[in-house]
This record gives sequence, C-alpha cells and structure tokens, in this order.
Amino acid sequence: MPDLSRLLTPRSVVIVGASPTPGSLGNSVLRNLERHGYAGDIHLINPKRDEIDGRKCLKSIDELPQGVDAAVLAIPGGAVLPTVQALAARGVGAAIIFSAGFAEGGEEGLAAQAEVARIAHEHGMVVEGPNCLGMVNYAAGIPLTFVEAPVLDLTGKPAVGIVSQSGAMAVVLGTTLMGKGLGITVSVSTGNEAASGVEDYVEHLIADPATPAIGMIVEQFRKPARFLTLAEQARVAGKPIVLLHPGTSSAARESAATHTGAMAGDWQLMKAKVERAGVILVDSLESLGDVLELAVRARPVRKGGTAVLTESGAFKALTLDLAEAIGLVLPEMAGETAATMRASIPDFIPVSNPMDLTAQALVDPDLYRRTLIPLLADDNFAALVFGIIQTDEATSARKFPAIIDAVKALQPEKPVIFAGIDDGAEVPADYIAGLRAIGVPYFPSADRAYRALRHLSKLATRDFARADAVPAALDLPSGVIPEYRAKQLLAPLGIPFPAGGFAATVDDAKTVAARVGYPVAIKAQSAELSHKSDAGGVLLNIADDAALDTAWAKLYGNVAAYDAGIALDGAQVEAMGKRGVELIVGARNDPDWGPVILVGFGGVTAELLHDVRLLPVDLTHDAIVAELRALKQGALLDGYRGSPALDVDAVARLIAGLGRALSGTPSIREIDLNPVVVYPRGEGVVALDALILTE
Amino acid sequence: MPDLSRLLTPRSVVIVGASPTPGSLGNSVLRNLERHGYAGDIHLINPKRDEIDGRKCLKSIDELPQGVDAAVLAIPGGAVLPTVQALAARGVGAAIIFSAGFAEGGEEGLAAQAEVARIAHEHGMVVEGPNCLGMVNYAAGIPLTFVEAPVLDLTGKPAVGIVSQSGAMAVVLGTTLMGKGLGITVSVSTGNEAASGVEDYVEHLIADPATPAIGMIVEQFRKPARFLTLAEQARVAGKPIVLLHPGTSSAARESAATHTGAMAGDWQLMKAKVERAGVILVDSLESLGDVLELAVRARPVRKGGTAVLTESGAFKALTLDLAEAIGLVLPEMAGETAATMRASIPDFIPVSNPMDLTAQALVDPDLYRRTLIPLLADDNFAALVFGIIQTDEATSARKFPAIIDAVKALQPEKPVIFAGIDDGAEVPADYIAGLRAIGVPYFPSADRAYRALRHLSKLATRDFARADAVPAALDLPSGVIPEYRAKQLLAPLGIPFPAGGFAATVDDAKTVAARVGYPVAIKAQSAELSHKSDAGGVLLNIADDAALDTAWAKLYGNVAAYDAGIALDGAQVEAMGKRGVELIVGARNDPDWGPVILVGFGGVTAELLHDVRLLPVDLTHDAIVAELRALKQGALLDGYRGSPALDVDAVARLIAGLGRALSGTPSIREIDLNPVVVYPRGEGVVALDALILTE
Repeated sequence: MPDLSRLLTPRSVVIVGASPTPGSLGNSVLRNLERHGYAGDIHLINPKRDEIDGRKCLKSIDELPQGVDAAVLAIPGGAVLPTVQALAARGVGAAIIFSAGFAEGGEEGLAAQAEVARIAHEHGMVVEGPNCLGMVNYAAGIPLTFVEAPVLDLTGKPAVGIVSQSGAMAVVLGTTLMGKGLGITVSVSTGNEAASGVEDYVEHLIADPATPAIGMIVEQFRKPARFLTLAEQARVAGKPIVLLHPGTSSAARESAATHTGAMAGDWQLMKAKVERAGVILVDSLESLGDVLELAVRARPVRKGGTAVLTESGAFKALTLDLAEAIGLVLPEMAGETAATMRASIPDFIPVSNPMDLTAQALVDPDLYRRTLIPLLADDNFAALVFGIIQTDEATSARKFPAIIDAVKALQPEKPVIFAGIDDGAEVPADYIAGLRAIGVPYFPSADRAYRALRHLSKLATRDFARADAVPAALDLPSGVIPEYRAKQLLAPLGIPFPAGGFAATVDDAKTVAARVGYPVAIKAQSAELSHKSDAGGVLLNIADDAALDTAWAKLYGNVAAYDAGIALDGAQVEAMGKRGVELIVGARNDPDWGPVILVGFGGVTAELLHDVRLLPVDLTHDAIVAELRALKQGALLDGYRGSPALDVDAVARLIAGLGRALSGTPSIREIDLNPVVVYPRGEGVVALDALILTE
Repeated sequence: MPDLSRLLTPRSVVIVGASPTPGSLGNSVLRNLERHGYAGDIHLINPKRDEIDGRKCLKSIDELPQGVDAAVLAIPGGAVLPTVQALAARGVGAAIIFSAGFAEGGEEGLAAQAEVARIAHEHGMVVEGPNCLGMVNYAAGIPLTFVEAPVLDLTGKPAVGIVSQSGAMAVVLGTTLMGKGLGITVSVSTGNEAASGVEDYVEHLIADPATPAIGMIVEQFRKPARFLTLAEQARVAGKPIVLLHPGTSSAARESAATHTGAMAGDWQLMKAKVERAGVILVDSLESLGDVLELAVRARPVRKGGTAVLTESGAFKALTLDLAEAIGLVLPEMAGETAATMRASIPDFIPVSNPMDLTAQALVDPDLYRRTLIPLLADDNFAALVFGIIQTDEATSARKFPAIIDAVKALQPEKPVIFAGIDDGAEVPADYIAGLRAIGVPYFPSADRAYRALRHLSKLATRDFARADAVPAALDLPSGVIPEYRAKQLLAPLGIPFPAGGFAATVDDAKTVAARVGYPVAIKAQSAELSHKSDAGGVLLNIADDAALDTAWAKLYGNVAAYDAGIALDGAQVEAMGKRGVELIVGARNDPDWGPVILVGFGGVTAELLHDVRLLPVDLTHDAIVAELRALKQGALLDGYRGSPALDVDAVARLIAGLGRALSGTPSIREIDLNPVVVYPRGEGVVALDALILTE
C-alpha cells in the first residue's frame, strides 16, 4: 500500500495550476495553506507566471525537485493524465485531483481514470479523487483543498475523523461537528477513488491515537471485505465508526451510479455486514452528527436502560411513545431508588421513569441534584437524559447552572445528556459550553438525544460472539450440484432432510421406498434440470410398488417431453412428510461482501412484507434464535393464538450448519433449501429441497 | 356556552393571592400584566396586605365590584373551591386555576373538580384549569399566567394560535414558534378542563380572523364529536389545525391517565377520525412547529410533486431515500422544463429532480435563478425545496442574497422552502430574516423541510368527498340481534350473504335446502347464543335431506348440552360456498368518536402485523378502494405472484353498505361480519356471518 502520510502530513506540497486570481481553485488552495501557516515547502506551477504573491512559480513539473510529498491538481480534467504522469516521474508521493468527468463521465473518462490508477500503482503514489474536494489535516494544520478551511484549535476538544466519498458531504459534516464545538482531526473526501479509497483512510484513522471516532459518508464500498476487517478492528479498539450510506431506495442507488461511477450495491446486505462488524449505521446527516457527538463527548454508553428527568407530563408521554417506537429501554427505578426519590421530591410529584419534575425545579433548582443522585446510582440505568424546558434567558439562568453544578459535583460514570425540549429557544452559548466542558452533550431536541443514545446503546447490547462451530470444507465440483448430491453433502452438517435416498433405477427406488416406507415422493435428478416442478419432475404420494413403477415411467416421460436433451441421473426417493410451517432458508456468497444467510417465513405474505432477515454465517446459536424472533412474524415461532410453539432450536441448528458450509467452502455461490418445514417444539425441522451452486 | 371573551379579552382582572414576593405566582401574574401594559382594571386580593407595588389590595372577594371579567387564582389547591364559589357570587366571568391535585389527585380531587364544574355551569362561568398555566392573548397584550410572557409585536408576522392541555407544552410550542420568528395570537393551556376544554378555545380561534392556523397538544379529547365538527369547519375555512397527541404506546396512555385524570383512549380511532376531519396529526414537537411554520409563512401547499434544488450528489441520494420512506413525491421534470434547464446549466451537470447543481453556484450564483424559473413554471411541481450547503459566513454571503433576490423577483405562486443541509452552521440572522420576509421558511435541516411539506401535501391530496349513499335507518330491537335476523336486515343494504334462509323447523330447513341446493350448512340461532361454534352450533357439508334430519337433531342436542337454558329460534340454512381470500370486516359506534369500520385481511398473520385499517363510514367508493389498497398486504387485492386479482369493488360496496347502516342507525354499537370471503374480480364477496349489537 502506498504511504498515506505523504498525502496527510506532507513535508512539501506543489500546487499545479497555482493562480493569483481570488476565488480560483489554485489560489484558494494557496490561501488555505497560508492561513494555516503551513511550515513545509510550497511549490507553485504556472507556465504563465514568474511569481504569485511573492512566491516563485515554476513553468512545469519537470522543474520540481525530486520527491515532493503531495501535489494538488487545480487544473482542468483534460490536463490531469499528463500531469499525473509527470508528477510520478518526479517521485511525487501523492496527488489530489479535484476535476470531475472521469468514471462518472462516460467511457472516455473511465479509461482516463483507469490510466490514473495504473500510474498510481506503478509508482506507489497515493491518489485522492478524481472528483473530490481534497483533504484537511486539522490536527497538523495542513489543508489541501480549495474550500475555505478554518484553523481549529483542538486543545481539550473531543475530535472526530471524517472520511467521505462525497466532498460536499465531508464539508457538511465538518460544519455540523464544528457547530457542536467538536474538533476534527482529519477530513478526507475520496471522490471516484481511482487508486485510494475510504478503506485506506479508515485504516489510517484507526491507527491514529488522536482520532477517537470516525464519521463516514459512503455511497458504495469498493473494497467491502477490507472495510469489514477494519471495522472489526475499530470495534475491538473501542473506536466507533458511524456511517451514513444512502441507497435504501432504488432511485438513490441509480443516482449514486450516475454521479460516482460506482455500481449500485445491495444495501440490505451492506447493512447486515457492517453492523455485524460493529459499525453504527445511521439514516440522516443529523443523526450522523448526533451519534458522533455522543460517542466522543460523553462517558461511554454501556448496556442498560435510560433514565429521563423532565418537567412535563405530556412530554413524558411523548417520550414513552418515541422510546417504544425506536426501542429505547426506559426501565422502572429499583425499589431503593424510588424510595430515595420519594424522599427527595414534594409529595404531589409521582415517582416514575421518565421522572416528571413538573415546574417545581424553577422554584427549587436543587431538585435536579437530589433526583440525579439516586438515578446515577441505580444499576437499572446506563444513561440519563435531561429533557428540559428552556423558554428564555431568565429561565435558563435558573436551570442550567443548577444542572451543570450537580453533574460536575457528582462526576457520573454514566453518560448524561442535556436535551432542550423547546427547539429554537435562545440559550446563552455559555451554558451550552458549560455543559460540554463537563462531558454533557447538548441536543436541541430530546428526540435527537433519544435516537443517538439508542444507536450507541444498541451497539453496546449487540452480541458480537462468534459460533465456535468448525467451518466445513466441502469438496465440490463446479456448477450446479443436483438435489440428491447436495443433500448427501449437507446432511453431515446437521441439516435434516426427509428420509430417503437416491435411486438410479426403479428397483433402487423400491429398495429406498421399502426402507423409508410408503407413501413416497420421487424427484427427477440432473444437474441440467434446475426447475424440476416445471418439468413435471416431482411426483408425490406414491402409495406402493406398483404405483412406483407407473410413476417412475411417468417421471422420465415428463422430463423427456420437457427437454429431450436432459439425461437424468435418476431420482431422489423420499418419504412424504407431514405438514408444518414453511420457512425459506437460503445462503449466498456475495463476491463483494462475502457469505450471508437469508431466512424468512414462506408464502406470499412474507414476500409481500419483506419479512426476511440476513444473517452472518458465524452467529452463535442464541444469536440465530434472536434473529428468528426478530422476524416481523417472529411471534409465530413461540406459538400464537393457540398454534403450537415451533422448534426454533432446530431451525437455528439448520442455519448454523449452513453457516459452516458457507464459511468453510468459499467456492459456494448459493445454497437453496426451500421450502424448509418446521414442526412443533421438539419435533424438528426438515429441508425439502437442496441446491448448491458453485463457481 | 359561557362567554370566552371574558377570559380571553377581559376588561378587568382580579388576582386572588396577589403577592409582593418576586417569583411567587401572584406576583408573576401582576408583573406580566404590567409588562404588557394591560389597560383594564386590575384588582388584587390579599387578606394580609393593604397594597402591593402601590396598588390597593382587597381583603376578600366579597369586596370586589360586581362583574369583574376574569380572576386568576394564585392560591393553594385547598382554597380553590370556596374561592370559585365566592367569585361566582360576585358575577366574575372567568376563573383561571393553576393549582394541581384535582382530577389527577385521587377521589377527593375528583370530587372537588366536579364541584368547580358544577359552579361554573350554574353561573355560566369560564374555568381554565385546574392544573393549567393560564393563557396569554398576545394579540391584545393580555397575559394571565405566571410564566414570563414576552411582549410580541405581531405586525407583519404570520401568527399561530396555541391550544394545549399541557401548560408546559403550550410554553414550549410558544418558544419554538417565536424562535422561528412567528407570532402567536392566543396561547391557552386547559389543564384538567373542569368546565372549558380545548374544543371551546378551538371554536374561538376558528372564528378569529387574526389566527390563520392552530397548533394543538392534546392527551385526551373530552368532547371528540364536537372537536370533529369544529375541525371540519376549520378545514373548510382553510385554517389548518396541526395536532400533537401522545398515546401510540400503552405506556403513554397510562401516563396521561395518571397525570391528567383523563381516561386512556383509542389512539388509532382518534387518528382515523381527526384526519378525516382534516386535522394534520404530527408525531413530535419539532414537526408540530415545522408544519405550523410552513402553513402560515409560505404560499399554500397544493396537490402535486416537489422539486429539489441542491448541491451534492450524495445529498440527492439521501433525499431520494427519505422521499421514498415518507411518501414525498419527487416527479421528473416535464420535457420543456428539462430542455430549459439543460440550456441554463453547464454541460457537466446532469438534469434531474432532485437537481444537483454541484458546487457550481459558488462560482455562478445566478444559477439559482436560472434553474428556479423553469421549475416554478412546471406543473409537475407544486412546491420547491432548496437544499443548500451553508458552511460559513463567506459561503452564505455568496448564496443567500442570490436565492433571496431570485425568489423576490419571481414572486412564486408555489411554496418555496430553504433548507440548510449542514445543521449547526453559523448563518447570519439577517439572511434568515430575509428569507422569511419573502415568505420562504428557513429549516435547519432538509429532512425537516421534507417532512413538513409531506404533511401539508398529504392534506392537499386527501379526498374529503362524502359518499352520496343515503344513510339507512334500521328499526332495531335492543341487545344482540342474531345472525338470521341481522342478515335479513343488512342484505337490502347490498351486503351479500350466502344463499339461504332461516328455518324454524327441520321441514322449513329442507325447503330452504331445496331452494339453494345441497350441500348446506346449518347454524343455530338465538340472541342468547353468541358463540355458536363453541356450542357445536354450526354444522357444515350436509349432503341431503336425510343428513339434514340427523344434523338438525344433533344441532339442537349440541346447544342443549352446551347450555340447557338457551331456547333456539331455529337455524340459518345456507349453501356451502367455495373458498376465497378471507377478510375481517366489522364496525362499531364509539361512544366518544362515533362510527368507524375496521377492515383487514383475515388470519393470524394479519393480526400479528396489525394489518387493519379504520375507515370513516361516509367514504366514497374510490376512497374505500384506496384504503383497501393501503393495507400492508394490499398488493394481494390486485393479484400477486400469479394469484388472481380480487373483487375489490365488491368489497368496497359491502363496506359502503355497512357505512349506510352505521350512519343511519345510531343505536348500533357493533356489527361483525367475520369472516368475509372475497373472490376473484367479477365474482363478488360474501359475508359468512352477521351479528348486530345495539344499545
């Protein structure tokens, strides 16, 4: 991998296309460097000027000294390719390409971008872009961008690293974080990612001790597997990655393809995979900023419930509604807490969580402190939110100092959040700064606080354990593996199939039928026959030997009539099973994201409601069961309205077996077991079909 | 109804419990009146003082002149009852009771509140509260509250009226609206509503020409029917009512019951009813403020799509995702628009909606104007949102004036919204004021703009037409009406039942069977038998006369064994029908909210997924069909995955018939038709059962 430090902490910089014109790209880059007091060498290239602002200009790149660290290309797209070539020849370590019109600009642009990539790889050069806004290393005071970059004093400020494909979004997130009084260590926009991508920069930031959390905006991961490995590392290191990734709608996926040149990906698969790796996936810019703030400013969010201290009964009701909707847990207080609370507040205030202090704190601001003490001591709560009515400056003056002093005195081990209920209230900046100084994030709305807390709480609660089952390395031929063979291969992994076996002849079939007992089903077998039913290749309820003779002949006849070119290996003969609840279970190995299992209820309704879950292949038994219960119709599994509880454990074991196959046999592209029939608890599960597709 | 003007525009006021102590309730009320320069007479009651701040104090209410308009009771709860009595005796027109501890404070409080109500009704007195924060008539400069009320200059400001049960929420909404630079005409908190409720104040505000929109926060409507009538009037008058009503969660409903003394209501029913009346129901305080701002500041939102002008491809993708999630329609541009657009922007910018202008507007701010022109002229769009990156003051200085000038010059007939993408950016207040001055709301996040627009757009799109079907006045006895009788009554309304009829004897039964043809079902009939199946009172698939003899005897035997006290009227004899898709259809006449029809798919899955809709009884045929399609599994109606399209029109006719019965016969409490079987298109629908319960 090329050395990123030549881009991120360059000792020397060259601006290709330097310009004296205010507002021009080249001039803006220079002004940024000057404003930040960049201490390294600055080289300027402009064939038409001898100097700019008293700095000498070179006529061409060939005049550059060997080994300049980073080049900023403030030039039209058409000039990029020869420039990159020339820079490489002078041993320049990194190039930032602002120009658009590459991979997103048709075939010609695509070819030009590929050539940039080739040169970069050949010379070990870092390339940021094309179609990017550059980067700012705020920590080192090095801005390589034409967007005006403020000088940030990071002293004592919680900070975040920003990695975004979109340059505009990197700027937007930066503005948002600065508005929250947060620092930014490094902000990088990667654009089309000709040679270096978000994964490279994330790797750098994970290793950077000054960066405690990373905010990302990505439309398409180009190296998903690498990102997952990195995300896993970040999680283990306790460094949250918070990701905003458009693409839930097909319109958004098409749009991303148009303007970034990236292919539209499978958003749900991305979600399942990055969440498994420990990434927090958010759905709005607002949420991205809020979660990042909570992650870096407050005490770490642990597993557990939330206590809410507020001042209105109606607001308490709104909180209960939202908490239920988003899954934020608001437990009751422990008995001891409730008793202490009761003794701390006037009689007319009922004790509960959320705790509605009414307007009483206006009269008695010490109420905040007295109620905070038992709540912070209560193990039922892992976090606390103040939902406060701010109104005006006079009201704020009675509330903020009391809360700030109470929190300061108590030094809580748990995250405490201050949320104003009245969006738009004028709150003196000093109070907000006072809260932030003691590690209390200030949110202008409680809803935002609840949502941010829910994200971090969910991460703390998530089960990242891996199944200790041994991956199963199956020895598979290439292409379609027919049912009988697939069943033979998968059965040893604990995937139950109907009693039966393969028969090459009708006599074999009778032997199998004698063993499993009539009635039986017979199913035509050939790697060339992928739609057995359509071909009349499945015959059910065969009652005895005579009927089997007839059926066998009919089966061969049907398939021959369907496609005379198909030579059957024989037929799978199986005992007819009893009815149960149908599930769909399949697996695939995505070329980008790796293996995943899909599970859901069978039938039209389930399909209509998208009632399926995507499961990683290495979940523990308990995690698989939890995923099954999380299906929209999951309540059916535990018995609903008189129907019996189903054998969820057996389904989980089947899925675990499928996971072993997928994780141990990379050549598998797809496994399809549909339908899978699940019986009442203790009576197991059975997969009626099996198809394996390998690469 | 008592005269609200004595509360809202009193010519004289008395403060009971006047006090010289700063921060006390009585003192705060007086200071508010003084700050607003209240021009009427102010009387003070305090038995221990001769004067306060140079104003004379009366020792008791008995010393008051006759006929003071409004009294503010700044006294402990225990003193309220005698005080109200004394005020009534002096002919005081209105009383504001701040004290808590009434209906929400147990039996004793409940009795005290009932007594307050009795006195109020007897003397035609308006009572605000108890457990309220009073009211502020900002328009008239009359504050009757202890919460510091700012003096508002409403000149040239779009304004809103506030009616809230929660006093704290009234203050919160007021702060939020003022933060948006909006005016407030009147803000009333009704608390426990001993005698006057939100309905009374809404009626006043609908009639108030200075109030173009009403914001409400309600935990429980005490006079739902009256509110619906008023909401209907407001809708017709083009005066939006925007309502925040907690209670989606059972926890919130319980909490409301505890702290307001109100009974937990049926939130879904409330939603169906208020939306039908034209109310906009929002789910957060933030949304409440946002929708109100859009409603009063911008041009009216008409039916149609939304155009988005933005500056980032990634943001465009986020917009597409959110629009799909919330149902905001973003149509393509008309051909002519696209052509004009193409000619107005650089070649490298693709034409689409959302329109991503890239960073180009920084270089060429006239781009906003040039692209705005064709979009405003395009009939595909009823509204336009700018999604703008603000960054810093320098960037704002290049963008805001250009946008403000363009909008000012074009004087659009359509609502235009400015949304900043980067929450927390420091934007000079002048720019925001500049936008507001030309009727462009400023939102700190585009998501909020989209959601607010979606609310108003949905209202503009909603079909408020009423079915012209004549209500059916059925002559019904009291109590349970058994199936055979219910079917006879409902069939003439166009509700199809299986061919058949009532039989008092087995010979009658054979006559019916001969008419409808075997096989038949027989079902035991008695008003006392509400669970026929449990009693073995339903026998199916009876093949011929002989079988009918046996079945008839068995039916009577079963029921006698189940409950010897039940005397059967006879049995309903019906032709066995063929299988179809099962729906559930029922209706009830809620004592508070009035009649409603419930429709959904049958079966466990539908129940598990809450896949039902609540329908007003006066929907047009098309509106009923639209509601059916809006079921989560609605796609099944139009044929899904090879299943045939169902006879949706027949279902709609059945529902319309039910609606006629409900709206014409107020004595009906419940009608249950389950299950209703729907067949493929053209083959109709049939209700298998029928039960009517009257009061």
